[in-house]
Amino acid sequence: MNPLAIVLLSGGMDSCVTLAHAIADGYDVGALHVNYGQRTQTRELQAFHDICDHYGIARRLVCDISHLAAIGGSSLTDTTIELRPAALDSHEIPTSYVPFRNANILAIATSWAEVIGASALYIGAVEEDSSGYPDCRDVFFRAFEQVIAMGTKPGTDIRIKTPVIHCSKQRIVEEGIELGAPLHLTWSCYRREDVACGECDSCALRLRGFSRAGVADPIPYAPGTTLQA
Amino acid sequence: MNPLAIVLLSGGMDSCVTLAHAIADGYDVGALHVNYGQRTQTRELQAFHDICDHYGIARRLVCDISHLAAIGGSSLTDTTIELRPAALDSHEIPTSYVPFRNANILAIATSWAEVIGASALYIGAVEEDSSGYPDCRDVFFRAFEQVIAMGTKPGTDIRIKTPVIHCSKQRIVEEGIELGAPLHLTWSCYRREDVACGECDSCALRLRGFSRAGVADPIPYAPGTTLQA
Repeated sequence: MNPLAIVLLSGGMDSCVTLAHAIADGYDVGALHVNYGQRTQTRELQAFHDICDHYGIARRLVCDISHLAAIGGSSLTDTTIELRPAALDSHEIPTSYVPFRNANILAIATSWAEVIGASALYIGAVEEDSSGYPDCRDVFFRAFEQVIAMGTKPGTDIRIKTPVIHCSKQRIVEEGIELGAPLHLTWSCYRREDVACGECDSCALRLRGFSRAGVADPIPYAPGTTLQA
Repeated sequence: MNPLAIVLLSGGMDSCVTLAHAIADGYDVGALHVNYGQRTQTRELQAFHDICDHYGIARRLVCDISHLAAIGGSSLTDTTIELRPAALDSHEIPTSYVPFRNANILAIATSWAEVIGASALYIGAVEEDSSGYPDCRDVFFRAFEQVIAMGTKPGTDIRIKTPVIHCSKQRIVEEGIELGAPLHLTWSCYRREDVACGECDSCALRLRGFSRAGVADPIPYAPGTTLQA
């Protein structure tokens, strides 16, 4: 029997390539998806299931953590809370962004891992592309491994794997192709659910990654979408 | 303006006395309660609100993490998962117990703390009474402080306070009385929501704590409840 890993699978490109790494590393996979009230929640969930179907992954867990979005959203009505930096607004996630979100997701993943006996958690965090979120950095994941070691039953050994943490989007596209990851099933757009808008930051980063890798992005974009190299 | 603390308030005696400590320490409080599908969820939530009302706490956050109970529950249908030790059954929480639960709750608390600018998280964990749960130990909380330091924005300084972690139930009763904590509003019974059953482990521990402290427990018990010293 292969060892088990939990893969955090948002349905985007980074997490899809991360899943491809977990499978290439020889793991059987449990795939974890969280809804947190993001605008394209339905489309991302579809991408999650499409990717799981592609790999024949039966162990799937979908969790709702929209209470965390509510925490973030409350900043709009509570004057004691400092305002978000404007840069975040340009990512279009002011109501869904939650401080310490990766810790929340890793905590769920660890609970599940301990129950099913998984020995690794794969997360597609990218340190360089992460807008400086502190919980996307390698030092954060190493500290979380210590919490896992201290907070799970004796003998539990769960490691956090971040195979794309130092990759550019170009490199992620290239690795995805090398590993045969189903990039055509992924969804990255923050704005639309029918075709990718091609204009939001997430679309722009994705398109530039494909462009630099010299490959066409296989997902459909809104008419008139242009590439920026 | 006083500094802010998040207090994890289940509605039981330990968390109520922990809240009394936070207030005695000079904090303004945000109270966090989680539902995770436990049998006495409604009664515990009422205790949470009663205690908040008593102290005039307006900042309240109630989160549902019943997806974690589902993870635990899935062990009953998944033959690859090891069976729970029988000792847990005697606590009557087999379907609600979740490995790494405190990490999940602390992650939510940290998200909220970062948003509202709280500098402390109070949790009423008791190392001795904890049935050996690894995430009730002091080493676990110190490791989690490191995760907070690494995973929140620069300049964030959030400490975890565990004022009753080395207390016996007797000592918790005594401290509650010294601090004027509203122990009459707390709820500990795992089984009933009208009157405390007096028979479950939680009731037995509580009653023994009051008995050894030489005070009567102010909450109503089922007829015929006896004290064990």
